[in-house]
Amino acid sequence: MIDTRVSLSCVHQRNAWRLIFLPFNKLHVPQSLPAKTCRAINEELHESLVETCGVNPDDHFCLVARYHPDDILLHPTFLGERDPEATIVIEIALLDGRTDEQKEALFKDVRTRLDSIGFTAGNSIIFLLENNPIDWSFSPAGSVKSVLGL
Amino acid sequence: MIDTRVSLSCVHQRNAWRLIFLPFNKLHVPQSLPAKTCRAINEELHESLVETCGVNPDDHFCLVARYHPDDILLHPTFLGERDPEATIVIEIALLDGRTDEQKEALFKDVRTRLDSIGFTAGNSIIFLLENNPIDWSFSPAGSVKSVLGL
Amino acid sequence: MIDTRVSLSCVHQRNAWRLIFLPFNKLHVPQSLPAKTCRAINEELHESLVETCGVNPDDHFCLVARYHPDDILLHPTFLGERDPEATIVIEIALLDGRTDEQKEALFKDVRTRLDSIGFTAGNSIIFLLENNPIDWSFSPAGSVKSVLGL
Repeated sequence: MIDTRVSLSCVHQRNAWRLIFLPFNKLHVPQSLPAKTCRAINEELHESLVETCGVNPDDHFCLVARYHPDDILLHPTFLGERDPEATIVIEIALLDGRTDEQKEALFKDVRTRLDSIGFTAGNSIIFLLENNPIDWSFSPAGSVKSVLGL
Repeated sequence: MIDTRVSLSCVHQRNAWRLIFLPFNKLHVPQSLPAKTCRAINEELHESLVETCGVNPDDHFCLVARYHPDDILLHPTFLGERDPEATIVIEIALLDGRTDEQKEALFKDVRTRLDSIGFTAGNSIIFLLENNPIDWSFSPAGSVKSVLGL
Repeated sequence: MIDTRVSLSCVHQRNAWRLIFLPFNKLHVPQSLPAKTCRAINEELHESLVETCGVNPDDHFCLVARYHPDDILLHPTFLGERDPEATIVIEIALLDGRTDEQKEALFKDVRTRLDSIGFTAGNSIIFLLENNPIDWSFSPAGSVKSVLGL
C-alpha cells in the first residue's frame, strides 16, 4: 500500500513520468544456471533500470524461464561472440516512451554489471517490447493508467 | 471449418470487427498450480474476453508456462499487495484497436471472476502486447488479414 | 567478428535493410516433440525467413519452450483445423518494417516447408511481435541501431 501511495504522489511531481517505466523482465536461461546466479543477474538488471532509466526501485518484476541445452539455438558469432550454451536472453516488456539514449545506457550498463559479477557480458542478448499504461494491470484496482491517473 | 465460415461471414456484418480480437493468452504460473486450476483460470479469462471485448467464443488459445518458486521474482507490494509465490502473470497478445474502456473492463472482470473461483485476485498481474491482423496466421490459408479479408 | 563486419558492410549497400530483419524465434511445443524435430522445424523457419524476407543467413536465434499436454489449451477448429496436442506456436519478435507481402510469403512458405519435413502444417500457429533497431542488443557494443549505424 505504501508503495502505491508513493507512486501516486510521484506522478504529480515534475519528472514523475521517469518513475513510471514498468519493466517486466523475463530471463531466458540454460536450465543449469543456478537460481542464485539468476537472482544476481536480475538484481543487476534491476539496478541498471533504476540507474539508467529512473525506474522506481520497487518496480521489480522478473520471471526466469529455463531451457534444455538442446532447446537453445543461438548463432555463435552474429553481431557479437557468444557461447550459445551459456547465453541468456533478457526480454523486457516496458512502457513506450524511453529515449534511445536511455536504452543505449541500459544496454551498456547491464553488460558492465554482468561482467562485474563474473558473468561474461558477451553471453547476453537483450531485447525490448513496448506497450502503454493502459496495457498493464497489477491489481484489482484497474489499469496502471487509471490507478496512477496517467 | 464451420468456425472459419462463421468468422468470414461475421466480418461482413456491422460491428464484426468486435469479433476479431484474436487474443493469445499465456499464463505464467507457479509450477505447483494444479492443471485443473489453470484450466479454470483460462476459462474465466476467456469468458471475460468474450463478455467485455466481444471476442468470438471459439477464439480460444492459451499456453500455460510453469516456473519454479526460485524463478518467480515479483515485488510483494508495488502497485498492489500480492503473494509472489502464488502470483500468476497473464500475458495477452492481441490485436491493436481495443479501447481503453474495453481494457479496463477486462481487467476488472477478470479479477472478479478469479475471486469467484477462489483464486485471490490480487495475486494476478495482467499485461497486453498488441499486433495487427497481418501478424497472425492460424492455418496454411495465410494471414488472418487475408483469410478474413480485413 | 567476421559476421559483424559482413553486417556492417551490408548496411552501406543498396537494399541492405533487407538484411536487417533480426528475427528472434520462439517455438512453443508439446514437451514430447523430439529435439531433432524442433531443430528441423527451426531450420526450415530460418530458411524461410532468409528466402522470403531476405534475412541474413547468420541471423539465426531460437528458443524452444516446452509444455505439458495439460498446459496446451488451443481451440481445435477456429480459423483452421488442428490437433491441439500436436500443435506448435511459432512466435517471432522482429523489426518493424516488413511488408504485408513479405509476411504472407513467410506464412505460406513456412507451412510448405513444414509439410515437406513431415510436420502437419495445419498444426502450427504463427504470430509476430515487432520492435525497432534500438530495442535490440546482441553484444556489449550497444544496440543494433548504433552498432550497425542505422
